[in-house]
Amino acid sequence: MLPDRAFFDLLAEAAAEETLPRFRTGLSVVNKQQGGFDPVTEGDRAAETAIRALIGERFPEHGILGEEHENVGLDREHIWVIDPIDGTRAFISGLPVWGTLIGFQSNGRATMGLMDQPFTGERYYADGQKSWYRGRDGKRQISTRDCGKLSDAILFTTSPHIFGGEDLVRYRAVEEKVRLFRYGCDCYAYVLLASGHIDLVVENNLKPYDVGALIPIIEQAGGIITTWDGGRPEAGGNIIAAGSKAVHAEAMALLAGR
Amino acid sequence: MLPDRAFFDLLAEAAAEETLPRFRTGLSVVNKQQGGFDPVTEGDRAAETAIRALIGERFPEHGILGEEHENVGLDREHIWVIDPIDGTRAFISGLPVWGTLIGFQSNGRATMGLMDQPFTGERYYADGQKSWYRGRDGKRQISTRDCGKLSDAILFTTSPHIFGGEDLVRYRAVEEKVRLFRYGCDCYAYVLLASGHIDLVVENNLKPYDVGALIPIIEQAGGIITTWDGGRPEAGGNIIAAGSKAVHAEAMALLAGR
Repeated sequence: MLPDRAFFDLLAEAAAEETLPRFRTGLSVVNKQQGGFDPVTEGDRAAETAIRALIGERFPEHGILGEEHENVGLDREHIWVIDPIDGTRAFISGLPVWGTLIGFQSNGRATMGLMDQPFTGERYYADGQKSWYRGRDGKRQISTRDCGKLSDAILFTTSPHIFGGEDLVRYRAVEEKVRLFRYGCDCYAYVLLASGHIDLVVENNLKPYDVGALIPIIEQAGGIITTWDGGRPEAGGNIIAAGSKAVHAEAMALLAGR
Repeated sequence: MLPDRAFFDLLAEAAAEETLPRFRTGLSVVNKQQGGFDPVTEGDRAAETAIRALIGERFPEHGILGEEHENVGLDREHIWVIDPIDGTRAFISGLPVWGTLIGFQSNGRATMGLMDQPFTGERYYADGQKSWYRGRDGKRQISTRDCGKLSDAILFTTSPHIFGGEDLVRYRAVEEKVRLFRYGCDCYAYVLLASGHIDLVVENNLKPYDVGALIPIIEQAGGIITTWDGGRPEAGGNIIAAGSKAVHAEAMALLAGR
């Protein structure tokens, strides 16, 4: 049995009950890595626990890949891919561009997904066929736009600091071509792309749970999301997402270093 | 006669009627500078027109300094300082971190101010004594926090690209010291600082209308906002805002190049 929108909504609401009360409260931050700064909040952990409990109850036969807890049954037909708070740095800064990411894969392919931003009240959802927005201003099907060419594109990335060495050189080659670029959005950039507000997202070193929920939201809105060399994005890594084939091809040529 | 909160709210609502319906609609963009990319929306212009009309009606004796239209009576005792859409790049990208800025000065000193983000429903207001937040999650007085020292600070700036030459060197010296830095927030960074979520904002080449409304919101929340050399910020220029004296002093020493 496959999940439906009502079940995805249930998961999003369970997560929001753990995240939203901890947003903008001056919460404590736990360092995951000794020496480095990799904040993860209590909300992150509690939200994933809540999501896993609901999945385990309704779909005990499904696997789960999550950011905060141990993976379960990754060899199963259906797998949930969870990042309870994508954009923890935004979260601890009080900036509402973080999101709860809940993806669903069948036979290794991302087919359904949800991104929820409970402070702004925005929810993005891919049902297997189409992508949808629901917010305080209503509900609508969303689609990417085709800005035509790279020099007319709006590009988002988390930060130029995420790129090192040759990756940075290639990223800069794209940045130099676009009409406008902007830093600092994590998952929020991908839903803006799926909604046709921006044209390109370029990032690297992503984990599977960073993109799992976003792949179907972008693809079912008409966009393209792949690795920098054009492969399937489910495993994460170096990722490019574009609103149209033309912009994807033009940016990918620069990123692939061809 | 001085304006009150009700009048500031009236201005914010008049502006929102012009900005919000044009947000996320794929609106047309007008280039202000030939060759450069400096988007300004119809909403920007219409909102300032609406604000000016209300001020002219209620306070015809006040001066007005605005981004979009001609300045009026800058030698008068009371002056309104208006940026109808601060963060036009965020606006055209669908990112709700832009804001409507309405500041009020008496004898050259910023005394009252409002920042409104109508999509998220957040409104920040300095009444001459205290700073306030009002949003969908309630109303409360806000205050900055003291994180103690620069190495514990969260720093925001619009983009490292705004800094050139020696300014960039000095900015980087601050960036290298902080716990966490983030790009891309315009006015939203200042209200996060006033609310105690972040600790430091460093920017350069600001116009008077970029900071006019934000100065009292920060100062009346207990924060400090000055030029990089410690002067009053009303005229804009190179600006530093901090949640506490200690962090302000530590960052300013690096920015002043001493």
